Amino acid sequence: MNTPTSSPNPNPAAPGAKPVHAAQIQFPVVDNCLQVGGIALTRLAQRVGATPFYAYDRALLTRRVEALRASLPAQLELHYSVKANPMPAVVQHLAGLVDGLDVASGGELRVALDTGMAPQRISFAGPGKSEAELAQAVAAGACVHAESEREIRVLARLGEQLGIAPRLVLRINPDFELKGSGMRMGGGAKQFGIDAEDAPRLLALCGALGLDVLGFHIFSGSQSLRSAAIVEAQAQTFELALRLAQASPSPVRMLNIGGGFGIPYFPGEARLELAPIGAALAAALPRMEAALPEAVFSIELGRYLVGEAGVYVARVIDRKVSRGQVFLVTDGGLHHHLAASGNFGQVIRKNYPVAIGNRMESGRREAVSVVGPLCTPLDLLAERMELPQAEVGDLVVVFQSGAYGLSASPGGFLSHPAALEVLV
Amino acid sequence: MNTPTSSPNPNPAAPGAKPVHAAQIQFPVVDNCLQVGGIALTRLAQRVGATPFYAYDRALLTRRVEALRASLPAQLELHYSVKANPMPAVVQHLAGLVDGLDVASGGELRVALDTGMAPQRISFAGPGKSEAELAQAVAAGACVHAESEREIRVLARLGEQLGIAPRLVLRINPDFELKGSGMRMGGGAKQFGIDAEDAPRLLALCGALGLDVLGFHIFSGSQSLRSAAIVEAQAQTFELALRLAQASPSPVRMLNIGGGFGIPYFPGEARLELAPIGAALAAALPRMEAALPEAVFSIELGRYLVGEAGVYVARVIDRKVSRGQVFLVTDGGLHHHLAASGNFGQVIRKNYPVAIGNRMESGRREAVSVVGPLCTPLDLLAERMELPQAEVGDLVVVFQSGAYGLSASPGGFLSHPAALEVLV
Repeated sequence: MNTPTSSPNPNPAAPGAKPVHAAQIQFPVVDNCLQVGGIALTRLAQRVGATPFYAYDRALLTRRVEALRASLPAQLELHYSVKANPMPAVVQHLAGLVDGLDVASGGELRVALDTGMAPQRISFAGPGKSEAELAQAVAAGACVHAESEREIRVLARLGEQLGIAPRLVLRINPDFELKGSGMRMGGGAKQFGIDAEDAPRLLALCGALGLDVLGFHIFSGSQSLRSAAIVEAQAQTFELALRLAQASPSPVRMLNIGGGFGIPYFPGEARLELAPIGAALAAALPRMEAALPEAVFSIELGRYLVGEAGVYVARVIDRKVSRGQVFLVTDGGLHHHLAASGNFGQVIRKNYPVAIGNRMESGRREAVSVVGPLCTPLDLLAERMELPQAEVGDLVVVFQSGAYGLSASPGGFLSHPAALEVLV
Repeated sequence: MNTPTSSPNPNPAAPGAKPVHAAQIQFPVVDNCLQVGGIALTRLAQRVGATPFYAYDRALLTRRVEALRASLPAQLELHYSVKANPMPAVVQHLAGLVDGLDVASGGELRVALDTGMAPQRISFAGPGKSEAELAQAVAAGACVHAESEREIRVLARLGEQLGIAPRLVLRINPDFELKGSGMRMGGGAKQFGIDAEDAPRLLALCGALGLDVLGFHIFSGSQSLRSAAIVEAQAQTFELALRLAQASPSPVRMLNIGGGFGIPYFPGEARLELAPIGAALAAALPRMEAALPEAVFSIELGRYLVGEAGVYVARVIDRKVSRGQVFLVTDGGLHHHLAASGNFGQVIRKNYPVAIGNRMESGRREAVSVVGPLCTPLDLLAERMELPQAEVGDLVVVFQSGAYGLSASPGGFLSHPAALEVLV
């Protein structure tokens, strides 16, 4: 077992050297050209028919699930969080590989049901579920993660109206948070879930309303690259689950321990080590299974499953030099890939890993800024980055773009054509 | 003439008091309810048929144009930058009031042409215009603001292919910038326009290619609340235009001096004073008209024309208290209004002006956070803001939402229903 990494910068460069991006070795290079889904990027662009586009590599999705299965205990179920990438073909492919799908809206629920995934293996979480969405979920037989007293009361009423017992799990806002997380979603005052200390009251309310609570969903954060922090949060999650179980009138049958596995985006960040997490879970689960003998344990991952399997591809349409600085102007930008522009939850903008997909091994390099076609200085895909010298017609590739890419971007901004998406 | 404001915080609160939002007095309040387009918001919500929605007030758009006409010299043409709000009904209404439309994509060009605006009064700027877009613009007879040598060469070729002389203006990256601007788009190395010092070379190139350059577009920044800074930038713009005219082989017939007029979003910001800008322009224009007797002078405004005329409206669907903090969970959020969530060009998140539209004058107030339905802590419309105590069913209003709202937001994020838009 490796020693868990606990440094906030787990990929330090040599002293004095600048930190670098984690190597994007998941995509091979043949004849100077990146290969996605086994196809040369130039050929793939012809097949897609237009730039810009997102391409997701089917084999990489499969390999990522296999790597997780190999590292994590066999009895831990693996769920895919559809919000990370709701492209129907991606969800369909993953539905055949994972044990469940987690959705965050009525729209995502429809995509999940279309895959043929058994409804009881679909769970619906989110802090502002409408009555119509709750009714959809109950009617489908999906598992609803209730996040407030109001949702519990609406579910009880809908159950009576529809004549269907709602499949109900309580989402808990824990009294701790995943340390060093990119997105803190637990601990403190939050709109997510039911405060852990308020759970006994709401469990009693559920009993009084005739609702059977199947178990708990405890989510403490996401996008962590520190296995030690994840191990610690999971240990706290298990302790909290045992406390909650004592307040539960019926046995715990489901425990979703959240996710939190991150991927490296920025210079200096390294890939998460799975081995320490797997080892800690293997050590912890037997005790949990003994304490909660009817429980199925699951983990939910979105970004970690799909993020590294996708690239965003835009074509250089102009190359200009302004006051000594080279700009590659592409047909894609912020409107398709908000996160890469630095405008989605980042305080200080940093570059995503970027390459010239048809000049992967070119000798001559230069510092360039890659910008999009929008009339705003925010439309920036790479700022003063060292890249092979590129020309009009070349293909700019933004790596780590499989999650929170197209669906998290303002596609209508400035009324440019939509980006396409392919799974290859 | 008022003294130009030059403080970076032109709306200082009393000593010791917290800065406050500029009063949103453009919308009247009747019987405790906000009126938009002369209709009570509760009634308007029924008429729209669903929340969330954006509502733009037609009379406020008209009044804003009238205020500008009253303050600015009569011979200065007023253009609307469609990118600020491309809703066709809004563009159509403004097309009847302004002298021209500025577009930033082929898609916006189609919307502008649909209004019936004369094509020669439509201008097309943007750093990454595709060949297809340039051909569209030439075929339409619109005015193309060329931003690079490549665009000039493509235009020359398209002109020959189509048998149409392109209407061509050079967009200039000035050697100064609008000070205190929210968006610096001039000065330094930029992807926008042609560096001022490179203009003589490209004017000569245009001549050699048989292209008639009609004039210049000089854009130095946007979203400034300091009239003194705008006056200074306009003076520099005129000086630069005179220098450029000397290098121009034909007389200058068009000079677009950019925009830059801001609106107040955040506590402590006050509305721009138009009078000093109008006075300075009235003093400067006669000299410019003498020097450039064939020139039509224009100013382009987007946000300033539409931003204050629009509200975003979402309904409270849950009210919860987590660890002592009140959260109003609404059916709208970041996916419809990215800028209000603080994820669009802001480094430090601040609250937009927000109200409870059906409780405008309620007595009891409390500190609340207004959040959306998305599973992310980024989905925040107001953070710990003092608001009238609200309940499920109430209507949350985000003011200053007429520009860069719906079209600049990731509508597909988490697959929630789209927001509607109405002009009333």
